[in-house]
Amino acid sequence: MNISAPVFTLTLIAHSLTQAAEPLLSWNDTAPKKEIISFVEKVTKKESPDFVPIPERIATFDHDGCLWAEQPMYFQALFAFDRIKALAPQHPEWKDKEPYASVLKGDMKKALAGGEKALLDIVMATHGGMTTEEFDKIATDWIKTAKHPTTGKLYSEMVYQPMLELLDYLRKNGFKTFIVSGGGIDFMRPWVEEVYGIPPEQVVGSSIKTEFKMRDGKPVIVRLPKMNFINDKEGKPIGIQSHIGRRPIASFGNSDGDLQMHQWTQAGNGARFSLYVHHTDADREWAYDRDSHIGKLDKGLVEAKEKGWTIVDMKKDWNKVFSFQD
Amino acid sequence: MNISAPVFTLTLIAHSLTQAAEPLLSWNDTAPKKEIISFVEKVTKKESPDFVPIPERIATFDHDGCLWAEQPMYFQALFAFDRIKALAPQHPEWKDKEPYASVLKGDMKKALAGGEKALLDIVMATHGGMTTEEFDKIATDWIKTAKHPTTGKLYSEMVYQPMLELLDYLRKNGFKTFIVSGGGIDFMRPWVEEVYGIPPEQVVGSSIKTEFKMRDGKPVIVRLPKMNFINDKEGKPIGIQSHIGRRPIASFGNSDGDLQMHQWTQAGNGARFSLYVHHTDADREWAYDRDSHIGKLDKGLVEAKEKGWTIVDMKKDWNKVFSFQD
Repeated sequence: MNISAPVFTLTLIAHSLTQAAEPLLSWNDTAPKKEIISFVEKVTKKESPDFVPIPERIATFDHDGCLWAEQPMYFQALFAFDRIKALAPQHPEWKDKEPYASVLKGDMKKALAGGEKALLDIVMATHGGMTTEEFDKIATDWIKTAKHPTTGKLYSEMVYQPMLELLDYLRKNGFKTFIVSGGGIDFMRPWVEEVYGIPPEQVVGSSIKTEFKMRDGKPVIVRLPKMNFINDKEGKPIGIQSHIGRRPIASFGNSDGDLQMHQWTQAGNGARFSLYVHHTDADREWAYDRDSHIGKLDKGLVEAKEKGWTIVDMKKDWNKVFSFQD
Repeated sequence: MNISAPVFTLTLIAHSLTQAAEPLLSWNDTAPKKEIISFVEKVTKKESPDFVPIPERIATFDHDGCLWAEQPMYFQALFAFDRIKALAPQHPEWKDKEPYASVLKGDMKKALAGGEKALLDIVMATHGGMTTEEFDKIATDWIKTAKHPTTGKLYSEMVYQPMLELLDYLRKNGFKTFIVSGGGIDFMRPWVEEVYGIPPEQVVGSSIKTEFKMRDGKPVIVRLPKMNFINDKEGKPIGIQSHIGRRPIASFGNSDGDLQMHQWTQAGNGARFSLYVHHTDADREWAYDRDSHIGKLDKGLVEAKEKGWTIVDMKKDWNKVFSFQD
């Protein structure tokens, strides 16, 4: 066979164009990919009985364990620990006071032995007491420089390549993509637009109380060390209603904290799609579900199987997890 | 002079195309229109030193008295009074209990004599106790049928034609338009998309608490008779930060309730634009400002003049107020 140079070049170009147009490249041709594409075609084809107009194509994504990793600990907790260390010189009393003393010694297990109260103390000491602009800068600086404890990668590299492709695929099909996370709304907003293409106004999360004030004649919003709203479990449908005001037609999660979001999504009229990412890949990522303290998936898995929601087996269904892997 | 038919037709077509492309037709060629256009050109021209990228072109609009009228009383209060009448058969005790008894007798002045407490009682009795879906339907039915007490028009016709043109003009220039109102977020959301082209997820407002529940195996969100957040005065920057997470570059209001929103907008870097609609037209609309209980504009007017914000004199600057007027 003899292919002339121009034809060969054209063939190559055509091939790379096809590749670029091919959605969900990091997804294997197993059930989840087929189910995603079939749902999207069903709601976007004008002649389909399940057609959904563009403004109603709302898709909500959990963050920790769904868009980026969450092991060995929620990354925002690691951020808080780093902040405790950075703030310690201004708080000499922390040396002898739990949970701060243990954080400063690097003993995270002991630091968190105090349960929710200890975690709340750490969050309030690190997330409150500054203006919104100051906190923006703190979160941005951290995400640009801090490294994951076991992979040594930037946290913004610890995002799932298949999920980035999925966000992109949905947006190309007229969906508006939202993050709906138990994590802090203001911790995510400064950098998620660059990483996921999701603007701040499409981020829903947990929040602390704030106060509007004049400071030297300039208005500021001060972050108070007091919880305002926890956007998890029953909180997710509430957060969705409060921020979006429309019911999603598609929802994506990985833990029991996302179950009520899936239930709320599924209870609407017309075609619906809910997906659980199941962490099954101890080699490329982590493997955990019903017995994990982080991202526990138990009741959600039972209900997903019962109701026929899509379940992604990371190991089987993704040919790539992180973009830095081969 | 002799113009041939085809040339004449072409001239007419060209003229009507120019007209269609001409923005802000209901605005006279006075200062406010010029200031709006000059600001928009400044932030949208690539080569301008004040150029703002599209995702950051956030514009926030107050609702009552800014996009639609608010006299003789906030329209949502009139909605609440109508609901008291509709619900009265289920509440025989209201006949002898204030403020309900006065509402049922049509004596609004006496009904509101109890001040904020009375108003809150009325709001809670009419806005709480049902699911979000049920309330959606109640608000939608009302907006489709209820008539304004003095003009006899539908409330959705009591919107300012110049402001509709302004919303449209900003969106055509890459702005994302938000409502930021002291009114109830869930009262506005079911119908503002149709009336203003603003989707539910771009509405910020006051809210009551809600609860996620399973009812006969179906998830519902129940509206509780308890205030959650008041999106007025200092609440507006807080609501903006919580819902949008970016500072607006342009803000539009008509009362002292919008002052902090303007201050917050103005305190950002780069070009900024803030506008007050001043109700000066007793013939085509209403004339009121510093002594009004509804939409009081006093401190805001002083600060607007001091800081050089744009002030619309309805009578002088708008050649049309409502689309149903000549």
